Amino acid sequence: MEFKSDIEIAQEATPKLIQEISNKLSIEDEYLECYGKYKGKIDYNILDQYRDKENGKLILVTAINPTPAGEGKTTTTVGLGDALSKIGKKTVIALREPSLGPVFGVKGGAAGGGYAQVIPMEDINLHFTGDIHAVTTANNLIAALLDNHIQQGNSLGIDVRRIIWKRCLDMNDRQLRFMVNGLGGKANGTPREDGFDISVASEIMAVLCLSNDLEDLKEKVSKIILAYNFEGKPVTVGDIKAQGAVAALLKDALKPNLVQTLEHTPAFIHGGPFANIAHGCNSVMATKIALKLGEYVVTEAGFGADLGAEKFLDIKCRLSGLRPDAVVIVATARALKLHGGVLKADLNNENVAALEKGIENLLKHVENITGVFGLPAVVAINRFPTDTAAELQYIEERCKALGVNVILSEVWAKGGEGGIALAKEVVRVIDKQESDFKFSYDENLSIKEKIHAIATRIYGADGVDYIGNSLKQIEEIEALGYGNLPICMAKTQYSLSDDMKKLGRPSGFRITVRNIKPSVGAGFIVAITGDIMTMPGLPKVPSAEMIDVDKTGKISGLF
Amino acid sequence: MEFKSDIEIAQEATPKLIQEISNKLSIEDEYLECYGKYKGKIDYNILDQYRDKENGKLILVTAINPTPAGEGKTTTTVGLGDALSKIGKKTVIALREPSLGPVFGVKGGAAGGGYAQVIPMEDINLHFTGDIHAVTTANNLIAALLDNHIQQGNSLGIDVRRIIWKRCLDMNDRQLRFMVNGLGGKANGTPREDGFDISVASEIMAVLCLSNDLEDLKEKVSKIILAYNFEGKPVTVGDIKAQGAVAALLKDALKPNLVQTLEHTPAFIHGGPFANIAHGCNSVMATKIALKLGEYVVTEAGFGADLGAEKFLDIKCRLSGLRPDAVVIVATARALKLHGGVLKADLNNENVAALEKGIENLLKHVENITGVFGLPAVVAINRFPTDTAAELQYIEERCKALGVNVILSEVWAKGGEGGIALAKEVVRVIDKQESDFKFSYDENLSIKEKIHAIATRIYGADGVDYIGNSLKQIEEIEALGYGNLPICMAKTQYSLSDDMKKLGRPSGFRITVRNIKPSVGAGFIVAITGDIMTMPGLPKVPSAEMIDVDKTGKISGLF
Repeated sequence: MEFKSDIEIAQEATPKLIQEISNKLSIEDEYLECYGKYKGKIDYNILDQYRDKENGKLILVTAINPTPAGEGKTTTTVGLGDALSKIGKKTVIALREPSLGPVFGVKGGAAGGGYAQVIPMEDINLHFTGDIHAVTTANNLIAALLDNHIQQGNSLGIDVRRIIWKRCLDMNDRQLRFMVNGLGGKANGTPREDGFDISVASEIMAVLCLSNDLEDLKEKVSKIILAYNFEGKPVTVGDIKAQGAVAALLKDALKPNLVQTLEHTPAFIHGGPFANIAHGCNSVMATKIALKLGEYVVTEAGFGADLGAEKFLDIKCRLSGLRPDAVVIVATARALKLHGGVLKADLNNENVAALEKGIENLLKHVENITGVFGLPAVVAINRFPTDTAAELQYIEERCKALGVNVILSEVWAKGGEGGIALAKEVVRVIDKQESDFKFSYDENLSIKEKIHAIATRIYGADGVDYIGNSLKQIEEIEALGYGNLPICMAKTQYSLSDDMKKLGRPSGFRITVRNIKPSVGAGFIVAITGDIMTMPGLPKVPSAEMIDVDKTGKISGLF
Repeated sequence: MEFKSDIEIAQEATPKLIQEISNKLSIEDEYLECYGKYKGKIDYNILDQYRDKENGKLILVTAINPTPAGEGKTTTTVGLGDALSKIGKKTVIALREPSLGPVFGVKGGAAGGGYAQVIPMEDINLHFTGDIHAVTTANNLIAALLDNHIQQGNSLGIDVRRIIWKRCLDMNDRQLRFMVNGLGGKANGTPREDGFDISVASEIMAVLCLSNDLEDLKEKVSKIILAYNFEGKPVTVGDIKAQGAVAALLKDALKPNLVQTLEHTPAFIHGGPFANIAHGCNSVMATKIALKLGEYVVTEAGFGADLGAEKFLDIKCRLSGLRPDAVVIVATARALKLHGGVLKADLNNENVAALEKGIENLLKHVENITGVFGLPAVVAINRFPTDTAAELQYIEERCKALGVNVILSEVWAKGGEGGIALAKEVVRVIDKQESDFKFSYDENLSIKEKIHAIATRIYGADGVDYIGNSLKQIEEIEALGYGNLPICMAKTQYSLSDDMKKLGRPSGFRITVRNIKPSVGAGFIVAITGDIMTMPGLPKVPSAEMIDVDKTGKISGLF
């Protein structure tokens, strides 16, 4: 059996002009700014006219802890959106936008897969509408102004040993992780240790995604802590008067990008913060506009539900007032077998015994969503060609025995048609209005209490240990008055624990916090539990070597 | 007398939708890609349908050696375009696109001035359609792939002491000029000396501007020399297999950007390479498409005529087949007085004696254009409010006595109306068809002979001295087989000589070549005569501090 590649399927599609997609949502012409024929930005001033309009229903798609087998979270999000459209619901999809860095590394594109994709996939994966470039520029303008302040006399008394603001590029480039710059004498800056992050790890990206409007963005930007002065006090973006220029650079990046699925369902693709040191969700702006335009909005969060959904609910929802109406948790038989201890090479063999063990990972996430957060959950089993009837039956029976809604999804192979059962089930649970949403912790608890709540309630840990400077950092942050911000856990995505090798549903473990970093602009405190890579590298054979374009502009080699 | 600022005038204008501007040029809808309401890109595939159509007339606008008084070359270019439109000629303007770096430093915008501007000026000055971001990304992808090649085993045997490819950012950031990166141990690259240029200094920008189509671009990119191996042989982009991905990143950047003037004359703003280590002209692609769409095309070159026009004619025209029909040389009475020795503080005082001395700078450029290059020239005196009648009369009489066409231009104050006399004169000289274009040197001469020709014929030098490694570098380049490329002189723009203090028309000087660098991808050899800054810094009070945006997205503080 021969499968078409994602880019082949995407390039065979006949997209509609973006005006037609915009018309579907009754967006007035004055609010649509076209970027080429198939991409547009929606002016946020559109929200003024919808102030009194009721929101649509918000569906969050999340997943089990990710495995090398792939779960298909974005594919399911897109397919569910298409399926809702197919059963007559006015639907909008809201996704994150992909970083360029991984496109040239190992990963290729990030626009769904098979017959559940957003298009034009080449554009979405390369530059798109320039939002990430704007983030890069804004981030680096701040860095240039900071170093220039030091060069021009350093009247703020910035301690060059305590600059925490890094430059960034939207590139996988390990050579830039650690450097000494400002070399070459007096005219060329101040020698100091420095380094670059990938752009999506910039606090500017998190701010862009959590801002309610341009004024809010400017205020958040001005609060970002860049460095400490010789007295140990924070130096902010506001102190170097950069927030106006930064907001000017981001004025268009704050406008959500509209594209379409292969089946012409409208999709916002906007904002893409890291899911470890940031919250990993698309923009508040896109979600809010989508909820005014559609009856149903399908969105996703990064990584598995322990990180992505937890942050979506405890950070994005808390800071924006958004509330989901239902949560879809994606799993595959293959990934659950991996969680049950099967080796990747053996995944094509039926193994119900491994499923029995691995399914515990899924069930823990379901418990968290329904029990901790009080939200209705639907499990979507993303079907793979190698799944056996016995495996699928086992998952279904096991879930049903526990009262968990479970549906087989075939959107990868069949597009929206393959997600109709899932769409109907999601509509059914929303109509039952069983949502009784609560956060997993009260923001007014101490930082340690909040981390404890996440670790024990969401991860199933026995407790939390603090090493290195982390306790001192907590003290400092609470002394500065930022103790009441929500927590953004930076943890491995592969396990419910902070040890990537503990698959399934581990127990009897503790979480180790190594570092605490205030992201005051974005509005959260990052608790770091391991080595978090904020500047990836390229592999032995980068996928860049396969990418090409012909003389008409048609791209190949992008997967 | 109170003057409005450029941004005030620009924001008071009512732009037409970009479709209307595109319709003026009879561009079919399928070739127009909108970027917001007032910017568009034109698909280069449009050229296929115009293969047999005769070109319009090409007018090059250049200037005397620049001074702190400002000459208004872009303003004159825009105003002349508007004036040609006003007298009924189908006109297209073709300008360079501005770098973001200087916008946050001292300079502010670069979109003309007064009533001769291109709009939307805020967008043109910030991000625009993302071309420079694409150049940055392409440049830095090559750097990441190069360092990754070394990290993964260095099978090409690259000598890390001889890597000439730098990373870049579109930012004025002196801190990044000199660094040691790749620190932090084995997983984090190879420690080596490195540095960043501003993006418009990247060879990728020069390649983008000199490419005839995507295939040509890919071929040029693959030839770029990145480093030398342990045997001293060049390592190219083709060797690390990056040209396909780079071309994919640049596929939209290669499409010319269409905007309009305040008076709705169509203007391409596309490509902006440095005018010292590169050729300083807008893209070949934009100029070629403009010549198919308009009866008259007005374009400009960087710096004064000794650098900008010389490179336009000897590099851009030679490599593309383009030929100008007339050249406009811009001067102001104020700038000529500076060339005559007046201090900037005394510029508002009438001083015909200084003019008498300073006008020699203008006349040398006229001699070069008409005598060396065989092109008809018109001198445009860009009028300032402080110019006296006696001064203007002196310039006019002096030019006329030498048979030089000279016209007073008032486009800054009056827009196209103020340039009608200039437009009519330019049309008149073109109709007379006096052009007998020749290059200033034969490309098949040796590198030293070519540099000698430029120095003696264009600058008026007595000869050329070679210091440092420059003679050895010439030998190497000729041995590699690149001796027949044209020369790109990197010299101060402020003087005909290589000493920025020698104003007017210096004589009895020699040119000193310090360094020779092959830009094989772009297709020229750079001869460096002094310290050329390829990464600018920010001033004591950066203009970024004044830039702001209100909640509706309206920008202020951009000059």
